[in-house]
Amino acid sequence: MSPKYSPPGDADDRPLSGITVVDLTRVLAGPYCTMILADHGARVIKVERPQGGDDARGYGPHAGGHSAYFESVNRNKESIALDLRSAADRRIFEQIVGEADVLTENFRPGTMERLGYGWPELHERFPSLIYGSVSGFGQSGSPHRDRPAYDMVVQGMSGMMSVTGRPGGEPTRVGVSIGDLAAGLFLTVGITMALLRRARTGKGSQVDIAMLDCQLALLEYSIGRHLVTGEVPGPVGTYRPGLPPPFGQFRTADGHMVIAAGNDKLFAGLCTALGRPGLSQDPRFADGESRKDNEAGLTKEIETVLAGGSTEHWCEVLGAGGVPCGPINTVDRMLADPHVAGRSMLVDAVGGGALTKVVGTPLKFSDVPDLTRVTAAPALDQHRTGILGDLGVRTEDGPEARTGHGNGPAS
Amino acid sequence: MSPKYSPPGDADDRPLSGITVVDLTRVLAGPYCTMILADHGARVIKVERPQGGDDARGYGPHAGGHSAYFESVNRNKESIALDLRSAADRRIFEQIVGEADVLTENFRPGTMERLGYGWPELHERFPSLIYGSVSGFGQSGSPHRDRPAYDMVVQGMSGMMSVTGRPGGEPTRVGVSIGDLAAGLFLTVGITMALLRRARTGKGSQVDIAMLDCQLALLEYSIGRHLVTGEVPGPVGTYRPGLPPPFGQFRTADGHMVIAAGNDKLFAGLCTALGRPGLSQDPRFADGESRKDNEAGLTKEIETVLAGGSTEHWCEVLGAGGVPCGPINTVDRMLADPHVAGRSMLVDAVGGGALTKVVGTPLKFSDVPDLTRVTAAPALDQHRTGILGDLGVRTEDGPEARTGHGNGPAS
Repeated sequence: MSPKYSPPGDADDRPLSGITVVDLTRVLAGPYCTMILADHGARVIKVERPQGGDDARGYGPHAGGHSAYFESVNRNKESIALDLRSAADRRIFEQIVGEADVLTENFRPGTMERLGYGWPELHERFPSLIYGSVSGFGQSGSPHRDRPAYDMVVQGMSGMMSVTGRPGGEPTRVGVSIGDLAAGLFLTVGITMALLRRARTGKGSQVDIAMLDCQLALLEYSIGRHLVTGEVPGPVGTYRPGLPPPFGQFRTADGHMVIAAGNDKLFAGLCTALGRPGLSQDPRFADGESRKDNEAGLTKEIETVLAGGSTEHWCEVLGAGGVPCGPINTVDRMLADPHVAGRSMLVDAVGGGALTKVVGTPLKFSDVPDLTRVTAAPALDQHRTGILGDLGVRTEDGPEARTGHGNGPAS
Repeated sequence: MSPKYSPPGDADDRPLSGITVVDLTRVLAGPYCTMILADHGARVIKVERPQGGDDARGYGPHAGGHSAYFESVNRNKESIALDLRSAADRRIFEQIVGEADVLTENFRPGTMERLGYGWPELHERFPSLIYGSVSGFGQSGSPHRDRPAYDMVVQGMSGMMSVTGRPGGEPTRVGVSIGDLAAGLFLTVGITMALLRRARTGKGSQVDIAMLDCQLALLEYSIGRHLVTGEVPGPVGTYRPGLPPPFGQFRTADGHMVIAAGNDKLFAGLCTALGRPGLSQDPRFADGESRKDNEAGLTKEIETVLAGGSTEHWCEVLGAGGVPCGPINTVDRMLADPHVAGRSMLVDAVGGGALTKVVGTPLKFSDVPDLTRVTAAPALDQHRTGILGDLGVRTEDGPEARTGHGNGPAS
C-alpha cells in the first residue's frame, strides 16, 4: 500500500492507534469528524462512490484540479472506490466492515437501511462495531426526520441566526458552517465515548447525531435566558453579560479591534492610554450606568481617537496600559501572527494538490508528539491495493483484485 | 450524600460510568465540557472557592437568587467549597484528586503551578490522572500565552468575526460564545481520547486546549480558500459554495425564512409554488448566470410574493412544492416545534432554581437510555458531606468534617 506518513515518536502511543474507521461520509459534518479521528491515530478508510467520489471533490475553488474544500477536511485518510449496489463491491465492503471498529455515515435517514446496511443488520453481524450517524434531524423524531438539511437550514431553524448580527439588525448566518462543524464535533465525542464504553463492555452502539440538536446545544444560554425572562433574544452583537460599555468592537484607522473595559478602573486605564484621561471625568461617562445611557457618544469619542492609528498600534498601546483588547483580524492577518506557528496550527500537507498547508489540530496531548505535518487528502481510490492487501480482503479474482473501476494497478 | 438522580436503565452502562472528574473550571468553556461528561455518566465534583463559588453564579438574569447562566451548564454536578490556599482544604483536595480519573481547570496558564498543582507535580504523584486544561492561548506558545482571553477577543483575533456578517458589512460576533463553547467541545474530545488511551496504556496525560486554536480549527475552509486563492474573505452572509441564487434568507410577512433553490429545476419549482411560474421564463432569471447577475431584482420579486404570507405558510407551501427551505426561528419558535420534544432536546431539571427546563444532550446512543431529565445545578458546597464520605476523605477532625465555611450539616 502507499506508505502513510507517521508523525515522529511512537505512533502506537496516539490516542486512537489501532482503531480502524470505515468512512462513508461526504461533504463536511462527517468528514470533519473522521479528520479528527485520523489526526489522532485512527486509520480512516474513506469509501467513495466510483463516479466522482465525495461530492466535495467538485466544490471550488480548485487548484490543478484539486478542491481546497475537499482537501481541508480529508487529510490523513485513505480512499477506496466501491459501488455499494454491486454484488462484488458489497462483498469487499462487508469484509472491510468486519475488520473495522467504527463505521461512519451521513446519508439521509433510511438510505443505509435501503442498502441493507442499517444499524440493526450490521449490529447483528458485527456486535462490537460502533456505528456513527449524522443527519439533519436525527434517526428518530418527527416531523422533520426525512427532510433534507443544509447548514443554512439548521442555522436558521434552530435560532442560531436569530441571535447573530448587530442589535436591531437582521438575523445573520455564522460565517463558518457551524451547523455541520458542531455536528462533526459531537459525533467525534460520541464515537470516542462509545469506544471507551466498548473497552469496558465489549458492546458496540449506534451514535445518532442530528445537526439541529447540536445547534440547540450551542444555544444553551440563549435558551436559558429566554426561559427565565420570557424575552425573545434578537441579534446580540458584541453581547456582554451585565457589563457596561466600552465592551465591544471599535473602528480604527485600518480596521477594527475589540476593547473590553467593563468596569470603572479599566475604563480609566483606557482613557489614559488613549491620551484622553479627562474622558473618565466627563459626567456622561462617570459610572457604568451613565456609560450605558450614553453609549453612542462614548463610542464616538473612542473611535475619534482610534482613527488616528492602526489596529496594531492601538493593540500595543492599550495592551501596555492593561486594557483587555485585541485585533479583529482577517484570516491572513491571523495566519501571520507568530502564535499560530508556535502552536502548530498551520502545518504542512505532504503531497498536497490544492493545499500544501492546512490547519493543525487543537488537541494537544502532553506525551504525544504534536501533529506538525499531515498526509494530504487522497485521490479517489488511491489506496485500493493497500487496503485490500492489509485487511486480507479477497475478491472473487483473488487478493487485491480490481473490480473494474479502480485506479490501482491491475493484479 | 444527597441522592443524585440516575436516569432510567442500567446506569453503569453509560459511556463514562465509573469515571470521576475533579472540576476546577469556572464560567463557560470548562463547565460546558464537564456538563457533557456528567450527562454521560461521569461523576463531576465541582470544586469552588468558598467566597461566592464559580463567578458565573453572579451572572444575570437571576430568578430567586439563582443564575440562569450558571444553571444552564452545571446540571448533574456536585459542589464542594475548598480554599486551595488553606492547608486543611489542600489536604482534602489532594485526597479527592487521588480518587479521581480526571482533573479539569481553566485558569490563566501559571495559576495551577503557583498553587503547586501544575501538571508535572500532579503527574508525578498521580501518574494515571488525566489533566484537562483550557485557556485562551494555550499552555505553551508565544507571544500570547499569558494574555487574558475573552470569548470576544478570540472571536475577533482568529478571523471568526471577519467572516461573519452581511457581505460588505462590518465584522460580526457569532451570537453564542463560540470561542468558549468550541474549546469546551474540543476539551471533551481530548479528555475522552485520553481516557481511551489510558485504558490501553495505563498512562495519564495533559490535554492542552487553547480557545484561539479551536477557532482556527472551525475556520478550516475559510483558511483553505484564502491559501488557494490569495483572497481575504470578508463577511460571507448566506454563503453558498458555487451555487446561483436564490439561495439565502428572505423576508416574509412576519419574519424570515431560508430558501435553497440553487439549480434551474428547483428554481422553476419555487416559481410555481410562489404562484409566479412566469418568473423562471423571465430573461433576467433564465439561467444560473443570469440569476447571479440580477440577484437584487430576483430577491425583490421573491420577497414581494413572500410579503403576502407568514413564514409558516410559505414553509408549508414551498416544502410541499419540493423546494428546500425552512424558517429562521427565534428561540421561542424553535422550542415550540414538536421535533425538539421528540428528540429530548428540552428536558426537566429536577430541583431547578432559575431553570426547571434545560437543553438536552445531542449525544444519543442506541443502547443507553436518552437523558430525559437532569439534576439541577448544585448550590455552593451542597455535596460536601457526601463527597467526603463517599471518597473516604478524612479531615483532621475525623471523617466528613466541615472546615468552617461549608453549608453542609455539622458533623
